[in-house]
Amino acid sequence: MLTVNAYAAPSATEPLVPTTIERRDVGPKDVLIAIRYAGICHSDIHTVRGDWGPITYPQVVGHEIVGEVVEVGPDVVKHAVGDRVGVGCMVDSCRECENCQAGMENYCLAGNTQTYASVDRDGTITQGGYSTHVVVDEDFVLKVPEAIPYEAAAPLLCAGITTYSPLAHWNAGPGKRVAVVGMGGLGHMAVKIAAAMGAEVTVLSRTLDKKDDALRYGATDHFATADPATFAELRNRFDLIVNTVSAPLDLDRYLSLLRLDGTMVNVGAPPEPLALHVFTLFGNRRSFAGSSIGSIAETQEMLDFCAEHGIAPEIELIPAEQINEAYERVLSSEVRYRFVIDSSTL
Amino acid sequence: MLTVNAYAAPSATEPLVPTTIERRDVGPKDVLIAIRYAGICHSDIHTVRGDWGPITYPQVVGHEIVGEVVEVGPDVVKHAVGDRVGVGCMVDSCRECENCQAGMENYCLAGNTQTYASVDRDGTITQGGYSTHVVVDEDFVLKVPEAIPYEAAAPLLCAGITTYSPLAHWNAGPGKRVAVVGMGGLGHMAVKIAAAMGAEVTVLSRTLDKKDDALRYGATDHFATADPATFAELRNRFDLIVNTVSAPLDLDRYLSLLRLDGTMVNVGAPPEPLALHVFTLFGNRRSFAGSSIGSIAETQEMLDFCAEHGIAPEIELIPAEQINEAYERVLSSEVRYRFVIDSSTL
Repeated sequence: MLTVNAYAAPSATEPLVPTTIERRDVGPKDVLIAIRYAGICHSDIHTVRGDWGPITYPQVVGHEIVGEVVEVGPDVVKHAVGDRVGVGCMVDSCRECENCQAGMENYCLAGNTQTYASVDRDGTITQGGYSTHVVVDEDFVLKVPEAIPYEAAAPLLCAGITTYSPLAHWNAGPGKRVAVVGMGGLGHMAVKIAAAMGAEVTVLSRTLDKKDDALRYGATDHFATADPATFAELRNRFDLIVNTVSAPLDLDRYLSLLRLDGTMVNVGAPPEPLALHVFTLFGNRRSFAGSSIGSIAETQEMLDFCAEHGIAPEIELIPAEQINEAYERVLSSEVRYRFVIDSSTL
Repeated sequence: MLTVNAYAAPSATEPLVPTTIERRDVGPKDVLIAIRYAGICHSDIHTVRGDWGPITYPQVVGHEIVGEVVEVGPDVVKHAVGDRVGVGCMVDSCRECENCQAGMENYCLAGNTQTYASVDRDGTITQGGYSTHVVVDEDFVLKVPEAIPYEAAAPLLCAGITTYSPLAHWNAGPGKRVAVVGMGGLGHMAVKIAAAMGAEVTVLSRTLDKKDDALRYGATDHFATADPATFAELRNRFDLIVNTVSAPLDLDRYLSLLRLDGTMVNVGAPPEPLALHVFTLFGNRRSFAGSSIGSIAETQEMLDFCAEHGIAPEIELIPAEQINEAYERVLSSEVRYRFVIDSSTL
């Protein structure tokens, strides 16, 4: 067992505090990673505050992890000491269900083992990336290309893959009109990736505050959803809408923006039920779908795509002591666009 | 102008009554059809009773029409006197929007002209198929193959195409597991068509009352949705669910039956909003979609497919005087499976 520094939530209502946690001994197929940077995801906040259900405390969160391999188990073949690697939202899966067999561990029917707040094979609760080290099965460790700046690579492991996967699956590319709802951590990555894929990208955000950013990241248009004229003007326009907002929206209004065979995909995760009228879906044979991160193979594909296209998230690097303040700024949408924790400050 | 016999709804609350209506003179591209049979669709009832919004009375409904061409305009090239033809849910569309240009008149962005209760080009309200004759632009007239019994062909023009279109679009076929929700007029056609396409078909119906029928029409399984065990047993099972039920369902329960990349398509049209949890869509990257009848080209394809595979709906032939009684039996799900009016009794 290895005792390592971390920042943990003591309860649903208290700030995160510095602490130490135990990491398991490096098993035959395990990789020990010295974490260099960890991104702060809105999901971290939802989880520690119990928004998505009760969890066990204390809990360390963080599922946007990059660092260096410092030790490998005897059966490890994919990674070596010194490698620049990443870990995203999953650290294991059942490997037996039809989805795992198809290489889609993110849709594991037994429920994959998430990087934090999940029951691991040994019965312990997984602890995430706000920590100096982590031990992970090599199959769930990604290679981070040198072309991506180290600290900027972290958010790709969740914000990057969560937006890349639906854009790739629903064929964002030349000739396709893609709308991105919300210009936060996920939204700004969706804009960069969709633009790099060759799609025509429009941002739909409450106000026009981030319009300059959106255009700089590759969007051709930016509309304010607080203005009702937006919905009249953009009706029947998009092939794909990627909704990154975790608050409930008026789905019918957004769905009406889809053209023939268009799909609106939620990657935002409001806990409340959403309502829609079937008649909205009848028009243009529209679909409403969900997408959950991406498979390990697809995450590697995304990292390589970002390296090739020079894409990286916009980040604000913070020391660990600013995590709680950063949470408040995430909740008030003040971050542009992703906080990354410098793990040397833990 | 041609004065013809018909059955019309005088108001939202009164029974249908015999009457006469005027049909327009046969224009250059028009076809005059002597109607032989007209199906009774649940939509007819929703429409005359104002469930989908206010309409103008008196109103003749019926959009499952078959008959014989008795006169053609001078510019008609597709049909000739004596031809066996059909008319479905549309009689015109804008022909200019991107969907019409793509041959998808059923998704006309200007709103196609429906066979009844729609404003026609001349400003009159279209009157449907519970009538002895109808005048329709030749582009919206289908050829009814000889292999399909005349009276059984009528319901194909709505119930047939409404289920064929999503089955074809979402690739029902060998190796695909398809569930059909509801065993009514649409549902029993969905079973026959999906089975003919080579899919493995399961019926989900409130009770097991129609199990024998379902198996006879090509289903391999039939489950009662009143039994909660059904939803546990069939979880993650289907590639495609075609929901023919117009009443609100617990969407999350049905969506949870979809396997990876599965789609639930509503062809049933509940006027109430439906609620669902995004988390249900995250699992297996599920989609919820709508489908509205089919294009004219696809309707012809469906008729030819049914002729080739010997598929026809199960019908109960009635004289016009039994229309009101038939409505009550449709509403109480007592019909097996589609009423067809013998137009000679009008």
